[in-house]
Amino acid sequence: MATETSLLHIIERQIGSKYIGDDCAYLEDLGVVITQDSLVEDVHFCMDWITSQELGYKSIMVNVSDICASGCMPKYITVALSLPKNVSAEWVEGFYEGAKKACAESGVEIVGGDLTGSNKVMISCCAVGQKVSGRGVATRSGARAGYKVVVSGECGNSAVGLGLLMGQIDKNIFTAEERQRFITSHLMPCAEVEFSGKIASQMTDDIPYAMMDTSDGLMDALAKIAVRSGIGMVIDFEKIPVCHAMKKLQNWQDFVMFGGEDYKLVACVPQEVQCSFGTVIGEVVAGHGVDVKIGESTRHFDLNSVQERTYKHFE
Amino acid sequence: MATETSLLHIIERQIGSKYIGDDCAYLEDLGVVITQDSLVEDVHFCMDWITSQELGYKSIMVNVSDICASGCMPKYITVALSLPKNVSAEWVEGFYEGAKKACAESGVEIVGGDLTGSNKVMISCCAVGQKVSGRGVATRSGARAGYKVVVSGECGNSAVGLGLLMGQIDKNIFTAEERQRFITSHLMPCAEVEFSGKIASQMTDDIPYAMMDTSDGLMDALAKIAVRSGIGMVIDFEKIPVCHAMKKLQNWQDFVMFGGEDYKLVACVPQEVQCSFGTVIGEVVAGHGVDVKIGESTRHFDLNSVQERTYKHFE
Repeated sequence: MATETSLLHIIERQIGSKYIGDDCAYLEDLGVVITQDSLVEDVHFCMDWITSQELGYKSIMVNVSDICASGCMPKYITVALSLPKNVSAEWVEGFYEGAKKACAESGVEIVGGDLTGSNKVMISCCAVGQKVSGRGVATRSGARAGYKVVVSGECGNSAVGLGLLMGQIDKNIFTAEERQRFITSHLMPCAEVEFSGKIASQMTDDIPYAMMDTSDGLMDALAKIAVRSGIGMVIDFEKIPVCHAMKKLQNWQDFVMFGGEDYKLVACVPQEVQCSFGTVIGEVVAGHGVDVKIGESTRHFDLNSVQERTYKHFE
Repeated sequence: MATETSLLHIIERQIGSKYIGDDCAYLEDLGVVITQDSLVEDVHFCMDWITSQELGYKSIMVNVSDICASGCMPKYITVALSLPKNVSAEWVEGFYEGAKKACAESGVEIVGGDLTGSNKVMISCCAVGQKVSGRGVATRSGARAGYKVVVSGECGNSAVGLGLLMGQIDKNIFTAEERQRFITSHLMPCAEVEFSGKIASQMTDDIPYAMMDTSDGLMDALAKIAVRSGIGMVIDFEKIPVCHAMKKLQNWQDFVMFGGEDYKLVACVPQEVQCSFGTVIGEVVAGHGVDVKIGESTRHFDLNSVQERTYKHFE
């Protein structure tokens, strides 16, 4: 049985592309970034949990999020929809209503796509962003020792929402309002267009900086930036923005560090960059891996120890 | 049960985008065209018939073909692959070998994509082309009365290949070599990069012209251009390039007119455009629909009568 990591190694080796490894590919000659992400029924979502409006919304936002991670301006998106025969016209109407809402909120326009049959619902979107002249493009390799680490919002909420939907978390420990908040974080995540623009507008072409979204969790993003930038990080757990209600869960710290699909942005930028619209959670240092200070103790993570805790599609 | 046409109407109404309706979307501010097409197991291909090399090759080529239909230069492509757990590492290696071969032949580079689980193999690619300065972008609405209609190569071969693979055509009427030719047309279609470039290089920004690929058949492409351009066409059936062996089939004329997946290009261009690298099959006239002269008789087709004969995913 092939693992996701082994398949990704095959793909990297076969393609050998300088473009692989960031949330987006930067096509320098065109001044454009491009990204493609798919959502698959029973892998990424369950039709019983999510309305077609929510699914349309999320399909757009997860792709716009990748554009935001590059610091470029989200502009256009294509939507390829594969649908079983029993999907109704109303479902499709709802899907595009949700997609249009996400487009309106994030400033992108649907410009095409494809419609095919299938035996499960599958959505694959491709988003295009424009490099703004004079602003640098963020990569995972742009962090430098001395930079600060900034996150755009609360971490872990989406994974708690998923746990509630799957019945793996006892819903009675939360109020109805708290449940709704977690579940909405999961079903309708919002790409960080504003945070991305505010960071990128302060970065010129000659200053490297790093950004990545937390689609696979906060620690995954930090560990990947650390590896690709050849640096280490020291993170103060207390500073990570957390929804208060989350602390009702015994293992809430794991949700904050490893929970995926929040689609927040993590940025590593020079100290002088103004970041009051986000939260500084730590610092980039010489070294490797991520040290997380929790109370009196420090836990060290490298990419391997983080990925052991991340959901895998092929295992 | 929703039909494909009714779903496409919903999508058009919901999005109301000026971009929908061509093989590619032209993003004028970026000087870029973009297209996305998906291939789904048991809808577009059967794992028993096609090797992973062939599937990788075809996945790239069907998307490059859409870029070629715009007259722009194919440049980049992303590949989102969704795979069941039982797919081997060797299969994935083969897929990318085929994909790389197609990229090398058509001058495009793979710049990213996505890898997810699924219960059937699904491939969704997104290709990006560059508008060449001074050359116009072809659309389906660019045909004008008096233009000539040019096709880039033989029509119907792919559908005969599919018929052979499905056992719907008696394989004994063909030689082994003929069978191979038809089946290869189906499994490894080749995008018409050279034809597209030779046409486009003669077209300036101020001259409208039409191109479309024959992914859904020759008559489908002609009828769609006719509707969108508000013109009619007169086609001389005898002039359509046809593989000689095809005439062994009783209904070979239907394969030539309605067979899909050849990925040839149809162009409607002014008479003075030099087209010796293709075959002139008819003329654009005032009116509507497509008149096909076959021997002494003329058959008239409009988009509805063509689409009744085209394969539908949702019916």
